[in-house]
Amino acid sequence: VKKLSDLGERKAIKIIESIISQGEIPVGIGDDCAALELNDDYLLVTTDMIAEKTHISNSMKPWQIGWYIVAINLSDIAAKGGKPLGLVLSLGLPSKTSESFLKDLIKGADDCASFYNTFIVGGDTKENSEITLCGTAFGVVEKSCFMSRMGAKHGDVVAVTGSLGKAAAGYLSLENDMDDEHILKNLFEPKPRIFEGVALSKEKIVSSCMDISDGLSSSLYQIKNLNKIGFKIYKGKIPLSQNLKEISEKIKDINVDDYFLHFGGDYELLITLSKQNFINAQICLETIGCNLTEIGRVTKDSSITIIEGDVKEVLPNKGYEHFKNNNVL
Amino acid sequence: VKKLSDLGERKAIKIIESIISQGEIPVGIGDDCAALELNDDYLLVTTDMIAEKTHISNSMKPWQIGWYIVAINLSDIAAKGGKPLGLVLSLGLPSKTSESFLKDLIKGADDCASFYNTFIVGGDTKENSEITLCGTAFGVVEKSCFMSRMGAKHGDVVAVTGSLGKAAAGYLSLENDMDDEHILKNLFEPKPRIFEGVALSKEKIVSSCMDISDGLSSSLYQIKNLNKIGFKIYKGKIPLSQNLKEISEKIKDINVDDYFLHFGGDYELLITLSKQNFINAQICLETIGCNLTEIGRVTKDSSITIIEGDVKEVLPNKGYEHFKNNNVL
Repeated sequence: VKKLSDLGERKAIKIIESIISQGEIPVGIGDDCAALELNDDYLLVTTDMIAEKTHISNSMKPWQIGWYIVAINLSDIAAKGGKPLGLVLSLGLPSKTSESFLKDLIKGADDCASFYNTFIVGGDTKENSEITLCGTAFGVVEKSCFMSRMGAKHGDVVAVTGSLGKAAAGYLSLENDMDDEHILKNLFEPKPRIFEGVALSKEKIVSSCMDISDGLSSSLYQIKNLNKIGFKIYKGKIPLSQNLKEISEKIKDINVDDYFLHFGGDYELLITLSKQNFINAQICLETIGCNLTEIGRVTKDSSITIIEGDVKEVLPNKGYEHFKNNNVL
Repeated sequence: VKKLSDLGERKAIKIIESIISQGEIPVGIGDDCAALELNDDYLLVTTDMIAEKTHISNSMKPWQIGWYIVAINLSDIAAKGGKPLGLVLSLGLPSKTSESFLKDLIKGADDCASFYNTFIVGGDTKENSEITLCGTAFGVVEKSCFMSRMGAKHGDVVAVTGSLGKAAAGYLSLENDMDDEHILKNLFEPKPRIFEGVALSKEKIVSSCMDISDGLSSSLYQIKNLNKIGFKIYKGKIPLSQNLKEISEKIKDINVDDYFLHFGGDYELLITLSKQNFINAQICLETIGCNLTEIGRVTKDSSITIIEGDVKEVLPNKGYEHFKNNNVL
């Protein structure tokens, strides 16, 4: 008998996809959110579950756990250009959970929702043998503004918001007992690009978009496979987190590439768009304080090449599943 | 330090309510669904989580578990008169879970969604130490058709759809090793009143509505507390499930009242409406094959009296939390 541990998550999802009835929805499984038609808008819906043993570090404060479950759900809304309408939050908690843990968790969740001008509108509270949180976020975007994972075209610029490796820096500081609250915040208190997603979507200039929650290489491979295109990525252009630079200099025998190319948890946006539109997108995001950096180009041939000086290599799809395979958190 | 086991679920929910920011939403915590404004409609959202140790009987087939998580979420949409738009389903599963369990579970969930002309539009799959399922359903209802828990008025008829005690009959058959697949179906494969909810809401004749998932007494107390009214309930008028009647005759020393008054799991609708409207509601539901039975009246004084012949008693609020306190499933 085959077990999930033999199948792996990706195979399990394929099985689920093959069973469920395909509704007449324009965007379903395979994108960051499901999108349902609501007149001229799409209703965006996304859900994420995390559990104590596999996803929640002992070093996380209860407030941060609450922030985190809301933030990772909002990031999927951000990646589609959605304005959040609200969230529901289900809590599976052991009966030994303390009142103060519950209070801090809810405060963190509420603070994250409030930060993005949205609300927790409902939920469920049930007993569970481990802390298990399930958030569902919903949002709305004009159909013509929706940023799909589909649409990357040969010649397009590939760009990322902010910097990569921030969450990895937090992980490294934790692993090497260099606990620095400021650096850890990048890992435990991600800031989804809601305002940036909304601003970009209004410009209608993006050809494809997704969040980089699982790491840059994993995201690039997903866009590549959906669009039957490839990428050339200039390693030197990737905006490296200053924290990752500093921390990697203090640690022996570390391959920093593994962290900014493959490690997840940054919740930045990966976008493709034409060269002309890239400048407009940069200006648009600059006005709200966010950098947008070109890291390469979409190619016709379906491989992903990483270029550093004269060296061209195929980018491995390490597909880190953040908070899972690496057993960090 | 206070723990959740000291607080109980109701106190925990009060604490959560006191912390989260109140958005400008018309209906939030305290009703079956959250309702958010979408032009002339409300977007309805509800979420329910179940876990292996506390909510899922060993006697349930995987297909039934899938049906169940979808059905209980749709029941909340039904109680507000909503047309389902879709569901997302998060699965927390142990790594030892078999492929066939996953397939059957998803098939059950999909079959339930299809039965109600809706779809599973997305989800998440994560490792968990016990089977933990979290469903979120969303639906839509015209604002003017929304059936709130608020609005029961002195003099209104109190009525229920279908019959009560069906799920209890399944529970009793299980407890007494009289396993009858047909009777167990009522417990494990609830049929939310989606079509009935939509039909009733279109008539705009209901003054308040909720589903009876936690049992009749618990539901009556919730409507009473929200509306500052009371009820007189005629015990002889309560439509008893034929299965419960039959099974209770076979079991010694059973207080059948406990089962049709307090046991949950039937997922029928409890409604209040004026006497004139009651007849219209009956006709409306009859055309889609559903009985609607008057069981009593809304009273001015805020107590709930149960009447049988000359005997009047205060109805106890046993508030069974189905699949929890009674540790059945």
